[in-house]
Amino acid sequence: MNQKIADFLKTHAPATPCLVVDLDQVAENYRRYAAVLPGSPIFYAIKANPAPEILDLLAQLGSGFDAASLTEVRQALAAGAKAETISFGSTIKKSSEIAAAHALGVKLFAFDCLPELEKIATHAPNADVFCRILVSNDGAEWPLSRKFGCEAEEAVTLLKRARALKLNPIGVSFHVGSQQRNPAQWDSALAVMAKIFADLRLDGIKLELINLGGGFPTRYRRDIPAPEAYGEAIFSSLSKYFGNHIPKTALEPGRALVGDAGVIQSEVVLVSKRMGEDRRWVYLDVGKFHGLAETMDEAIQYDISSDRTGHLESVVIAGPTCDSADVLYEKADYKLPADLALGDKVLIHATGAYTTTYSSVGFNGFPPLASYCI
Amino acid sequence: MNQKIADFLKTHAPATPCLVVDLDQVAENYRRYAAVLPGSPIFYAIKANPAPEILDLLAQLGSGFDAASLTEVRQALAAGAKAETISFGSTIKKSSEIAAAHALGVKLFAFDCLPELEKIATHAPNADVFCRILVSNDGAEWPLSRKFGCEAEEAVTLLKRARALKLNPIGVSFHVGSQQRNPAQWDSALAVMAKIFADLRLDGIKLELINLGGGFPTRYRRDIPAPEAYGEAIFSSLSKYFGNHIPKTALEPGRALVGDAGVIQSEVVLVSKRMGEDRRWVYLDVGKFHGLAETMDEAIQYDISSDRTGHLESVVIAGPTCDSADVLYEKADYKLPADLALGDKVLIHATGAYTTTYSSVGFNGFPPLASYCI
Repeated sequence: MNQKIADFLKTHAPATPCLVVDLDQVAENYRRYAAVLPGSPIFYAIKANPAPEILDLLAQLGSGFDAASLTEVRQALAAGAKAETISFGSTIKKSSEIAAAHALGVKLFAFDCLPELEKIATHAPNADVFCRILVSNDGAEWPLSRKFGCEAEEAVTLLKRARALKLNPIGVSFHVGSQQRNPAQWDSALAVMAKIFADLRLDGIKLELINLGGGFPTRYRRDIPAPEAYGEAIFSSLSKYFGNHIPKTALEPGRALVGDAGVIQSEVVLVSKRMGEDRRWVYLDVGKFHGLAETMDEAIQYDISSDRTGHLESVVIAGPTCDSADVLYEKADYKLPADLALGDKVLIHATGAYTTTYSSVGFNGFPPLASYCI
Repeated sequence: MNQKIADFLKTHAPATPCLVVDLDQVAENYRRYAAVLPGSPIFYAIKANPAPEILDLLAQLGSGFDAASLTEVRQALAAGAKAETISFGSTIKKSSEIAAAHALGVKLFAFDCLPELEKIATHAPNADVFCRILVSNDGAEWPLSRKFGCEAEEAVTLLKRARALKLNPIGVSFHVGSQQRNPAQWDSALAVMAKIFADLRLDGIKLELINLGGGFPTRYRRDIPAPEAYGEAIFSSLSKYFGNHIPKTALEPGRALVGDAGVIQSEVVLVSKRMGEDRRWVYLDVGKFHGLAETMDEAIQYDISSDRTGHLESVVIAGPTCDSADVLYEKADYKLPADLALGDKVLIHATGAYTTTYSSVGFNGFPPLASYCI
């Protein structure tokens, strides 16, 4: 945790649980990713953290935005973003959402199947469209599924169809899986994209854009490659497959811009060791239903620290609700100080992404996760 | 779906997605469960659905309430419940919550370990306390875990300790797992409770209450035993283990009172069949992050219907967010009409429990699930 957040927690002593996001860290992350592939626009994945202060800051810095819904389109516009810097990246949009976004000036829409393409043609005539391609998610800590994207062969058919529907088939996108720790993972996907570009050129369609998607990681318990390593690996693959005709690229970081900028402060509600168990259970006042949903299947493993200095002991860590699914870490071997006691504060690090809006409205009567941007 | 909900949806045509709860059905469910073990109080598990209209109705009908947090205690009181009809059933309570509930007149508190018992002794002196025992969850569709409850042997020690701490050790509780389809599952647990009663009697502690917990099911895709079958099985076990000295019992139904009283209406946003896939994907405007969290691992399988009459085809059903975890049913073989098309309405049945408050605040920009009690 940086000093700025430590000072805030000390000075303001906010009620727990709460998330504190350091906007300076967000700005630094943005500048670093904006330099990774010089000239490539950033579409910040709003869903990672739509706090107005974060969107305002990123709009000021010149970021574009990836919107998952009409509400997110409106949030970006409210932050001062220009409509032409917004990508409506969801492939599952209601007709009414497409029409409203189009009316607000949004020009760029994603699709991955014919019915969605036809909806866009009807409700956002002449829009720029890009097709989302299904690629391998090996190496991702939060892999995606067959829910999104189509095969390359189908993409070629659909992008031709886009032209017939008087849309502008501008390019392709793909997603290598969230929290992707392997920069080489973009390589095989880019080979596929190059083939799509080549196939369509034969039909007189010159694609311009590769949306490289998200997947850029933030640091949790394990080290991750630097942003520059992703830039180098991706540029190398682009050169390999496109030679001197590298298309325009765009990046959609979400987690990578806000994850390590945030810290959740939580209180230990109970520590118990029951007869017949070899580990203590540590119950926090924040859990799966109030911000830490990404601990599902223990996928995302946050660093957790406290001021205690006792020797480290293996523990099970759980949330405060009466739902037995609200256990954060049971299989991952977490160790916390043996003198950790109820009433102690703990810090859950790198929780700036996918926490506040994942929080339930009020499961078990607990309020949504509070958030401060400083 | 009953006629009352059908009429409401037709007359009001509310925006989707939304939950509609029929209060008459809730009342009928309550009356039926109140008669299952005559004289046994019902502590409605507020967490299942804390809509004020439901709490008001149940308070009027004479129900007690099981609260998972101080907020739920306050919700019950606001509905007109008397403090002495409220059980603070969470075993993970902040000291401040215990003190506040005690100040509001709550007298009955749960615990399952020494530190929690000591908190209660300090912040709710002289309270009635019951110890939660860990029992088998075989047969439950949403099994619990080792998160809650202690072994019987430890319970005896703790209940003695309660007396030493000047609390009133009033009884025990256990939970056979949510959506428990086997009425015989209470039997082995009651054998354990009888042993605890007997052991403590040797120390001059006469327990009075067995809280039989929740677990009573609602009907999803599969038939369930009638409430009366649970009453008969439990009474038979009580007679077997307690003879002529059957203690006072209490029930904590949540899902069983509100589940089948609610229906979610949702709109089909997209239907697609991608190249190389043998099933169509049906994308709804409601998903895992906006009410249907219990589809996690496809545990709870809701009936889904539409007005379409085409022949039934296997489908994958997914929610609208850009999160690949937001797939409702992929392994469970759901079949929907082949002519189901985007813009169609579908009904998701028996969704009155564990939907509204599970909903996220605004993941992907989608608002929390709207709810109407009629």
